[in-house]
Amino acid sequence: MKKKKPLILVTNDDGVSAPGIAALVEVMRTLGDVVVVAPDKPQSGMGHAITINSTLRINKVKIYGVKEEYSCTGTPVDCVKIAVNKILKQKPDLCVSGINHGSNMSINVIYSGTMSAAVEGAIEGIPSIGFSLCDNSIDADFTASKKIVKAIAKGVLEKGLPKDVCLNVNIPVVKGDEIKGIKVCRQARANWIEELDERFDPSGQPYFWLTGKFENYDKGNKDTDVWALDNNYVSIVPTHFDMTAHESIKQIKKIKF
Amino acid sequence: MKKKKPLILVTNDDGVSAPGIAALVEVMRTLGDVVVVAPDKPQSGMGHAITINSTLRINKVKIYGVKEEYSCTGTPVDCVKIAVNKILKQKPDLCVSGINHGSNMSINVIYSGTMSAAVEGAIEGIPSIGFSLCDNSIDADFTASKKIVKAIAKGVLEKGLPKDVCLNVNIPVVKGDEIKGIKVCRQARANWIEELDERFDPSGQPYFWLTGKFENYDKGNKDTDVWALDNNYVSIVPTHFDMTAHESIKQIKKIKF
Repeated sequence: MKKKKPLILVTNDDGVSAPGIAALVEVMRTLGDVVVVAPDKPQSGMGHAITINSTLRINKVKIYGVKEEYSCTGTPVDCVKIAVNKILKQKPDLCVSGINHGSNMSINVIYSGTMSAAVEGAIEGIPSIGFSLCDNSIDADFTASKKIVKAIAKGVLEKGLPKDVCLNVNIPVVKGDEIKGIKVCRQARANWIEELDERFDPSGQPYFWLTGKFENYDKGNKDTDVWALDNNYVSIVPTHFDMTAHESIKQIKKIKF
Repeated sequence: MKKKKPLILVTNDDGVSAPGIAALVEVMRTLGDVVVVAPDKPQSGMGHAITINSTLRINKVKIYGVKEEYSCTGTPVDCVKIAVNKILKQKPDLCVSGINHGSNMSINVIYSGTMSAAVEGAIEGIPSIGFSLCDNSIDADFTASKKIVKAIAKGVLEKGLPKDVCLNVNIPVVKGDEIKGIKVCRQARANWIEELDERFDPSGQPYFWLTGKFENYDKGNKDTDVWALDNNYVSIVPTHFDMTAHESIKQIKKIKF
């Protein structure tokens, strides 16, 4: 008996027609039946936002010629919720998000729409992966990424993932044969500093752009995603949604409130 | 020498004029100098979203008569970033968010604007607490909450918090003398199921509301926030922003990609 093709849900945060999701769809269609549900506009930095104070719509699109494809008016997390609870008749075998135009290493994971979609996939019990290429450009070259994406997605389809865990995969910007390999690592401690660019509108009123400089507090530690990427490795961080600081429970219990 | 008053940053996700933040300001002004920077409109469910594709504005308001008070066009996380990097001359001694109109226990933490503001405070190195009352109503009674908020904020001002850790405090809806005490616990495993309410607009086109039923996968486990709240305890979950599933690194390394 022929083995049934896996069902793969594809989403992202750069929008349904971004080059990064096109590259991801191209790889996924070689691995299974693909359903695309992705935002109708860029949703970078949306983190784990959901739409609860307004309504959501989905619209059929014909961009990739896959099994089913929709744009959605909501956030990346909304896309996963609407795919799982409305569009798909069965739970997908894999949920992939990306390929993001830009890094989601380290603290970026918490602001990232790409990764939040993967985390939502994990919440729904689906093996899920967020892929990001460390290049913000619309013209980013996804050639080398596609091979890596395929290898990692195949591995996850075959072996599965631990319960409640998804993968945060970041790919360095080097030519394919310069990538040294894949490192499974932890999220580096880091922050964005000097984060506001103040400008003045034509009537003299101030407004602000969030911006900043990435500061790595984990310099030199070879078990982090930042180290892996700086050294031309693909980084994989197993990522979960238990925000409990378990190691602090004992200490907090000592505070007499 | 008189001890300097602590500087306290207050924010929320229900908007700068919500009754919950009014209650929080009322308590905080008894503990220190208060600066309010809160969203100019409801931002529930915004998770850790930040505004990167458009601009931000802040506007002085005069609601509470505290040291400084602003509304901000952005998300709760934007409010913390703009307070720390633009408005405040020094790092605050405490950042409090809430009191949220509604529970942020368990998996809600990841969707919560209230808690994301507290997490952002922790990222900025500020002792931070998110407070939520398990009552969504605009008419929620914050009387009992105020006493609890004061006790916990005082404890944190005096003892500090572990590095990179903030507190997720949820308060059950009972009269003050029915609250049994405070439990430091972990985030319960749970999910929202059946999440879409499909409706049709006047022209017959479908649209959706996210909704759902809370499902606790940790039933009976007395070390969780859901158990604490169900049993009339205030729950405190120490919460961090390291999303790494450390215990899975070894297992993922075994997958040959």
